[in-house]
Amino acid sequence: MRKLRFSFLVLMASIQANIFGQNYLDFNESDPVKMGWMQGFPPSDDKIVSAIDGSFFRFPALRYSVCHMRQFMPTTVVKASNGKRYKFKVRLDNAIDNIAFMPTNDPKPMLWRESLSKNYTDGMLILHKGKIVYEKYFGELKPDGLHAAMSVSKTFTGTLGGLLVEEGLLDENKRGAYYIPELKGSAFGDATIREILDMTTGLKYSEDYSNPKAEIWAFSAAGNPFSKIENGPSNYYEYLKTVQKEGEHGEIFGYKTVNTDVMGWIVSRVTGKSIPELLSERIWQPLGTHYDGYFQIDGAGIAFAGGGFSANMRDMAMFGEMIRKKGKFNRKQILPQELIEDIMNGGDKEAFSKSAYSSLKGWSYRNMWWHTHNEHGAFAARGVHGQTIYIDPKAEMVLVRFSSHPEAKNSKIDPTSLPAYHAVAKYLLSK
Amino acid sequence: MRKLRFSFLVLMASIQANIFGQNYLDFNESDPVKMGWMQGFPPSDDKIVSAIDGSFFRFPALRYSVCHMRQFMPTTVVKASNGKRYKFKVRLDNAIDNIAFMPTNDPKPMLWRESLSKNYTDGMLILHKGKIVYEKYFGELKPDGLHAAMSVSKTFTGTLGGLLVEEGLLDENKRGAYYIPELKGSAFGDATIREILDMTTGLKYSEDYSNPKAEIWAFSAAGNPFSKIENGPSNYYEYLKTVQKEGEHGEIFGYKTVNTDVMGWIVSRVTGKSIPELLSERIWQPLGTHYDGYFQIDGAGIAFAGGGFSANMRDMAMFGEMIRKKGKFNRKQILPQELIEDIMNGGDKEAFSKSAYSSLKGWSYRNMWWHTHNEHGAFAARGVHGQTIYIDPKAEMVLVRFSSHPEAKNSKIDPTSLPAYHAVAKYLLSK
Repeated sequence: MRKLRFSFLVLMASIQANIFGQNYLDFNESDPVKMGWMQGFPPSDDKIVSAIDGSFFRFPALRYSVCHMRQFMPTTVVKASNGKRYKFKVRLDNAIDNIAFMPTNDPKPMLWRESLSKNYTDGMLILHKGKIVYEKYFGELKPDGLHAAMSVSKTFTGTLGGLLVEEGLLDENKRGAYYIPELKGSAFGDATIREILDMTTGLKYSEDYSNPKAEIWAFSAAGNPFSKIENGPSNYYEYLKTVQKEGEHGEIFGYKTVNTDVMGWIVSRVTGKSIPELLSERIWQPLGTHYDGYFQIDGAGIAFAGGGFSANMRDMAMFGEMIRKKGKFNRKQILPQELIEDIMNGGDKEAFSKSAYSSLKGWSYRNMWWHTHNEHGAFAARGVHGQTIYIDPKAEMVLVRFSSHPEAKNSKIDPTSLPAYHAVAKYLLSK
Repeated sequence: MRKLRFSFLVLMASIQANIFGQNYLDFNESDPVKMGWMQGFPPSDDKIVSAIDGSFFRFPALRYSVCHMRQFMPTTVVKASNGKRYKFKVRLDNAIDNIAFMPTNDPKPMLWRESLSKNYTDGMLILHKGKIVYEKYFGELKPDGLHAAMSVSKTFTGTLGGLLVEEGLLDENKRGAYYIPELKGSAFGDATIREILDMTTGLKYSEDYSNPKAEIWAFSAAGNPFSKIENGPSNYYEYLKTVQKEGEHGEIFGYKTVNTDVMGWIVSRVTGKSIPELLSERIWQPLGTHYDGYFQIDGAGIAFAGGGFSANMRDMAMFGEMIRKKGKFNRKQILPQELIEDIMNGGDKEAFSKSAYSSLKGWSYRNMWWHTHNEHGAFAARGVHGQTIYIDPKAEMVLVRFSSHPEAKNSKIDPTSLPAYHAVAKYLLSK
């Protein structure tokens, strides 16, 4: 275990193991500023959040760390705009705080403002018709700060993959080994670009952290920038070559991070650019973002395309609004309209219904976006501990949430989030 | 040694040991882009520059790494301006390339442009009367990139220390233990703020990398964010408490990094802000800088005030020009005129002449600035491998150089640099 100590995923696992069934400090009790993490010169020993012992990724210290991931690991930059930076118009609507909704796990109604603390929200931003109508920062997150996006990172990688399909640089019917010959012999060798983008690959790959033999451990160890595995994969790409097939491709949605890292590899091989470089050039700079983002990287400098991005909340909202506007933002067509329409149409509902995520009834997954197929056609980027970019086309709403919920799984957070988002959307629609 | 593997200083030492007396690849042969470091998806094994084996800090890979320090270590941000960003006027003067000068170690004259490759220059920017008259980028450094400042970092810490003295937050005659009681019993306990700022402390502290018992190793190990020393100092501050006195304070200039880290500690204790925070608030943001810089940090999140800063070259030039203009830049009085005048007056020449740096005849050291006391009153920030901000008041010139010379010591680089700078200054003065 010692060698794994810096691994993001390993740490996620330890949290999930540690906290299962526990009672956590509540939102206010766990406020990272009040808790004093890393405050003082030097911080007292019990306030030091460390990569060495993995404490940086354990709740409640997690609430500090998600705003400072680069303090714990090597990173590479996603450059913001060096030109004119986009400024949102702000028309705050305080009535949102008192919108009531019905949690799906509780018969009592809840107010919007209550949901924020319930979900350990670090930042919440809502755009309506492109204007900021709601914006709050809590605890360690500041307006000029960054926050870990977790698996919202996948959506950026998937969107770039979809972009290359749209531009003809990738053929969605061609297979992984066509673009990356080294993937021949792995599960990805005969999976199509479309199957990888929509995560309908059949993989012998478990992300069950409670199983010490789960493949996630080897992936995690390979991506650890601080130790080299002897006689084993020592970076993300080396690991991806070893993933074996299980079942058939194209039948069941299987939400597995390695699909995104393979897509990152394919995108990079085809364009000659890393995901952070391409994200900056094609999206982050054209948006007119204000703040450099960054990705955590492995020992070969490879960005963790499946979960390693940290970014600023308003910058994230620019991305969301650009998607809502079918690729157009800041007076530029940044992504092709056809790509966004494809995302908005959603993916294979049947494949989704057969998955471990079938409790999200009627949903689908497309280009690494989650599609609710609800009455408003809402779709989202989603990451553990409650990260999201939630886009409601009908209500002309884009919502970004950064959070640090003690539970990683969104299934613990959705009951007081998804109905809350929909309630705000209905309110905005009625305005 | 294994535990030390990520240490910046240890790696510097290993380079110095490795390369002493060797013949290096020349400027063009060692071009990091041509060498292909970290290129490809994935890079081939022989092109991976790694923190694990220390290769990232060995020449010629060093030429890649100095532009990407955050890819190898945890860092914390120095925020750039979020307001209007300063734009230099550009009036390039190509005649500078053909200015001849006499190297101090060679009877043959050399042209300016030849000195750039001789000194493994990564970036060179010259301001005359505040306008850019010369600007070149080589190899891995790009106009929107960052570069390790090495000990130029000290000058930022020293300038902030001097600022607090000017503002009355620090009394230069008070001693270290007055501000940091934990320093009582260490050499810094009875050293005055002025002695620390001017590095005239008497310390039992060797930076002789060839001696395995030199104190630099323990400092370095303490600052390693990836291993906790059992029964020993496990962060910079804990180490600083252990530094013992040798000789008397106030008599001899002793260029030792720990003085800067103690000053960083004192500045942080007094202001409640880390060096990266304070540098951003008081200098980097008011300047109107374009790019976030960053500091490498230890396991307690403490910035390496004595050497851990990376920044953009134009942003560095803004700082230099602000100093040249006695604190005024971007229509603001950013630092008090009295502080800059104090720096421009230089330090104790006699203390300097008794030091290991006595070959720099007539120089002095003040507030962590090197003063040449030459006919133009030039003074500079200096860092290993050739980093500098060189300010010539008489010629109204500010010069910033980033470089990656195979030798760490500036004594190897000065013979073809200092006379070159002075020749350009004389040329600009005559224009």
